[in-house]
Amino acid sequence: MTLLYEGKAKRIFSTGASDVLRVEYKDEVTAGNGAKKDFIEGKGRLNNQITSHIFNFLKTEGLNSHFIEQISETEQLVKSVEIIPLEVVVRNIAAGSITKRLGFEKGYQFEEPLVEFFYKNDDLNDPLITENHIKLLHLADDNEINALKEAAMEVNAVLVELMNEMNLRLVDFKIEFGRTSDGQILLADEISPDTCRIWDKQSDINFDKDVYREDRGSIIETYQTFLNKLEAR
Amino acid sequence: MTLLYEGKAKRIFSTGASDVLRVEYKDEVTAGNGAKKDFIEGKGRLNNQITSHIFNFLKTEGLNSHFIEQISETEQLVKSVEIIPLEVVVRNIAAGSITKRLGFEKGYQFEEPLVEFFYKNDDLNDPLITENHIKLLHLADDNEINALKEAAMEVNAVLVELMNEMNLRLVDFKIEFGRTSDGQILLADEISPDTCRIWDKQSDINFDKDVYREDRGSIIETYQTFLNKLEAR
Ligand SMILES: Nc1ncnc2c1ncn2[C@@H]1O[C@H](COP(=O)(O)OP(=O)(O)OP(=O)(O)O)[C@@H](O)[C@H]1O
Ligand SMILES: Nc1ncnc2c1ncn2[C@@H]1O[C@H](COP(=O)(O)OP(=O)(O)OP(=O)(O)O)[C@@H](O)[C@H]1O
Ligand SMILES: [Mg+2]
Ligand SMILES: [Mg+2]
Repeated sequence: MTLLYEGKAKRIFSTGASDVLRVEYKDEVTAGNGAKKDFIEGKGRLNNQITSHIFNFLKTEGLNSHFIEQISETEQLVKSVEIIPLEVVVRNIAAGSITKRLGFEKGYQFEEPLVEFFYKNDDLNDPLITENHIKLLHLADDNEINALKEAAMEVNAVLVELMNEMNLRLVDFKIEFGRTSDGQILLADEISPDTCRIWDKQSDINFDKDVYREDRGSIIETYQTFLNKLEAR
Repeated sequence: MTLLYEGKAKRIFSTGASDVLRVEYKDEVTAGNGAKKDFIEGKGRLNNQITSHIFNFLKTEGLNSHFIEQISETEQLVKSVEIIPLEVVVRNIAAGSITKRLGFEKGYQFEEPLVEFFYKNDDLNDPLITENHIKLLHLADDNEINALKEAAMEVNAVLVELMNEMNLRLVDFKIEFGRTSDGQILLADEISPDTCRIWDKQSDINFDKDVYREDRGSIIETYQTFLNKLEAR
């Protein structure tokens, strides 16, 4: 069980099976590409539980992911994939970078969900890229780009509905995809309050990492309340 | 003849005819969105002559633009359009911002010409945008976006061939389009060494504004040599 990769939020380990990885969720939280950083006990447990719950729910809705099973409070088994170095962002409501980048008012409801691609490249600071860039950088071909967009829109539709039932609004989220050994594209990484923006429908409470980014409360309380809502649904 | 707009490189005046404007090319040169700025006598004359020559040449190749006629050393008449606030960039070879933004080596030849859109918005610093952003910002609809891309590729094909005959390589260029009163999309603004990157095929001499941006020689000599080549062709 060797450590293959240690990121900001997770550690990835090999297992006995070549196509299975163990993911350990860390008690660490960062913002602004690591500019702000804290150790917060219990955060790994919460994100592991939330991500597991969400990937399980997607499965019941017919959407596959790399998720196999949760094996402990902070660990899960996933299928090993070759990650496509793209952050696929879906936005229903304007918030965060797009308000600064393009001048949309925070809270502006897009006429239809917006899919954006960012190039996962720390040296370049994860820049926005277009479909033409993706092709010229040989990150994915036309068919794969279409598959990514379609899958992202499907995940969005299912999660919007899930949040809706919880009286929440799914503002935006980031997902990653990978290629399996047989060339299939599979949803991977995590879906948690670290990677989503989720707003309460009535109040202006956030159930996401903006609470940490903007010093607006306890990340543990926030994520725990969100997990409780998810489990009570 | 009232002054309607004064930009960094040109002044736009009304004329007796409501659909005709007079453009005066200024003896001013700027770089880095105005961070570097100089008055250079003769620059307006050169860009007016070069732009007039190029728009005339495009016309002979069947590509229309706002250009009507050159009326003095520094002035031309053009059709009035409502400018679409997009900078349409076509790149054949990597140089400038794309080398920093996406890590392409300067001089890298793209497998096919790359069309990029930037949102003409000084407050936002002219950010790169995708086709989805263009639609959500209501800057242009699907048909118009396709028309812009097609026109940009046609202009590129004609200019690549023109430069080729002059022993030059067209690295990249920026164009703008506008809507005429009857809703037609028309190529507008200018095409000059201010808005193109042009490299000599044999030497590593530039015939463009990089000479000014990077303090690598006289802008007047450079643009005059380019105009001479254009007229000698
Ligand atoms: N199924 C999978 N197979 C292989 N790698 C995966 C899989 N799922 C996620 N990953 C990768 O594992 C890493 C998870 O670590 P973490 O989220 O902490 O990284 P990070 O700090 O966000 O950095 P980055 O995502 O930029 O690499 C990510 O690089 C992610 O792309
Ligand atoms: N046919 C046209 N009708 C109306 N406006 C035009 C036409 N052609 C060009 N323009 C506009 O006239 C202005 C030309 O001025 P100039 O190129 O000096 O502007 P600039 O300093 O580059 O600033 P910006 O392009 O951001 O407005 C530009 O705003 C351009 O979009
Ligand atoms: Mg990550
Ligand atoms: Mg201009």
